[in-house]
Amino acid sequence: MKIGMIGLGRMGMNMGRRLLEGGHEVVAYNRTPAKTEEIAREGATPTYSLAELTARLDPPKVVWLMLPAGETVDQHLAELAELLGPGDIVVEGGNSFFKDDLRRAASLQEKGIHYLDAGVSGGIWGLKVGYCTMIGGEEKPFRQIEPLLETLAPPEGYMHCGPHGAGHFVKMVHNGIEYAMMQAYGEGFALLEASPYGPGLDYAAVAKLWNRGSVIRSWLLELLEPAFASDPRLTTITGHVDDSGEGRWTVQQAVEYGVAAPTIAISLFQRFQSRNPDAFENRVLAALRREFGGHPVKKADQQ
Amino acid sequence: MKIGMIGLGRMGMNMGRRLLEGGHEVVAYNRTPAKTEEIAREGATPTYSLAELTARLDPPKVVWLMLPAGETVDQHLAELAELLGPGDIVVEGGNSFFKDDLRRAASLQEKGIHYLDAGVSGGIWGLKVGYCTMIGGEEKPFRQIEPLLETLAPPEGYMHCGPHGAGHFVKMVHNGIEYAMMQAYGEGFALLEASPYGPGLDYAAVAKLWNRGSVIRSWLLELLEPAFASDPRLTTITGHVDDSGEGRWTVQQAVEYGVAAPTIAISLFQRFQSRNPDAFENRVLAALRREFGGHPVKKADQQ
Repeated sequence: MKIGMIGLGRMGMNMGRRLLEGGHEVVAYNRTPAKTEEIAREGATPTYSLAELTARLDPPKVVWLMLPAGETVDQHLAELAELLGPGDIVVEGGNSFFKDDLRRAASLQEKGIHYLDAGVSGGIWGLKVGYCTMIGGEEKPFRQIEPLLETLAPPEGYMHCGPHGAGHFVKMVHNGIEYAMMQAYGEGFALLEASPYGPGLDYAAVAKLWNRGSVIRSWLLELLEPAFASDPRLTTITGHVDDSGEGRWTVQQAVEYGVAAPTIAISLFQRFQSRNPDAFENRVLAALRREFGGHPVKKADQQ
Repeated sequence: MKIGMIGLGRMGMNMGRRLLEGGHEVVAYNRTPAKTEEIAREGATPTYSLAELTARLDPPKVVWLMLPAGETVDQHLAELAELLGPGDIVVEGGNSFFKDDLRRAASLQEKGIHYLDAGVSGGIWGLKVGYCTMIGGEEKPFRQIEPLLETLAPPEGYMHCGPHGAGHFVKMVHNGIEYAMMQAYGEGFALLEASPYGPGLDYAAVAKLWNRGSVIRSWLLELLEPAFASDPRLTTITGHVDDSGEGRWTVQQAVEYGVAAPTIAISLFQRFQSRNPDAFENRVLAALRREFGGHPVKKADQQ
C-alpha cells in the first residue's frame, strides 16, 4: 500500500527501506532533504514539504511519523491536521509518552482523523530482522494499516495492544525492562572483572557460552558478544550512559500507580550517576563523614 | 566414555539420560534406590553404594556429583577420597560456593585426585536443549572429560573458565544476573497490570510479541509465554519466591569486591520480602509514622 513516511532518521530511514523492499509505495519527507534524496534513490517518492507529501497520497491517506519525541511531533501534527481529512490515518511511531497520545488522538478526532500510536523496537537491527511493533488506538485504522505492519514486523511481531496510548505504554514498559536487563548484565560482568578469575576470562566467550542453553540467554547478551570481541575490556569507551524518555516515564508511572519497580528505578538512577561520577550526593556524604568521624576527604584539587 | 553419576535428582537424572542417549556408559548411584532403578531401566548400570560405583569404573575413574550444595557434597567427597586414587577425576556439578571448591580441590589434590567444579545451567530444559556448562580446574582433567561435556552441552555450550572455582563463580554470577532479569520482567508486567491498559492486555501475547524482534527477547521471556497462556493473571500461584545460595553469594561477593550490584542485590532482597509481606521493617516504619505524624496504623487484629 501507499504510505507517507515523515522523519528519516536512523529508525525512519530503515523502516522506509523495509517497506520499499516489501513492495509498498513510500512517499518520503524529511526536514533535511539529503535524507529524502537518499531514500528516493532506493525507490521512494521524494517530497519537500508536508503539503507535498499529503498531496501525493490517496484517501484514506496514511502517514507514519518517526520523529524525535516531544514538540517536533506536535508541530508536525498541527500542520498535518490542516492537510488531512476525515478517515485519514496518522501513525506516531516515535517514542512518545502515552499521555501525549491521548491528547493528540482527541485533538485529531475532532477532524475525523484517526490517530494510532506505535511503539517500535528493533533499533538498527530492525531493517534485517523486522521491527517489533506495539499499536494503540481504534481497531478499524489498525486493520487498515496491517499490510504495513506485516512488512515492518517479523512474523507475529506486531500487536494491537489496546486503546489510544496502549502501544506506547507497552513499548515504554518494554524499555524499562530493557534498562534493568542491561544493568543486570553490567553488574554481572563487573563482578567477573573484579574477581580473581577476571584477568583470565574472555568475556566474549562467556557471553557466547551463556547464550548456548543457559537461562540468561537473550538478544542483549548476543549483542555483547561482538562488543567484547572487538574490545575485550571495553577500554575504548567510557561508562557514560545516556537515557531517553522511556526509562524516566516508566519510573514516573510506577510512582503514579504505586507499583514497586526497584530494579528499573535503580537502573535509571545508575545512568544518571554514570554521567556524574563526582556527584553532589557523594560530596555531601564525604562532607558528613568528615564532620562526624573526622574521616579524610579527597580535596577537589587532588583529583 | 564411562562415568559414575552420583545424585539423580531433577538435574542429575536428566543429565544421566542425556549422557546415555549420547552413547556414554553411565554407572549410577543415588541415596534413594528407586531413582537408581529408574535410570537403570533406561540403560544405566545401577549401584547401591559409592564403593560399588567406584568399583565399576575404570581408571582414570570419572565421577560426577549432582547433589544439593553444602554438607552432602562434603560427605560424599570424604567417602570418595578413600575410594578413588591418583589420576581419578571428581566433577562437582551442583551449585557449590566457589570458595568450597578451592578447599575441596586442595584436599583431594593431596591424594592425587583431580577436582573440577562445573556450573551447570539449563534446568528442566537441559535434557532437550543441552546444559550450558562452566568448568573450573586444571586443564588436563578438563580435556579428559570433554567427551562428556560435548554430549551434555549444546554446540559450543561448555567452557573452561579458569582455575579451581572459576566454573562455579561464573555460574554464580550467571544466576545473579538471572535474579535481576526475572525481577525486571516481574516489574514490567506489574506496571502493565496496574495501568489502565492492564485489563485489556493478554500477557501471553505480549510476551510472545516481545520475543519477536524486540530488544528484550530472551529465554526467560519465552518461558513466560506458556506461564501466562495457562494462567493469564497467575491467580493459581502466590508470589512467594524462594532463593537458593547463588543469589546470596553473588551479593556477598559484590560486597567483598566493592562492586555496586544494586539490581542483583535488590532482586535478592525482593525475594526475601516476598516471603514476608508483613515484614518487621514495615512494622517499624508504620510505628514511626504513628509516632511522629500521628498517622493511623493498621492494627494486627484488623488484618
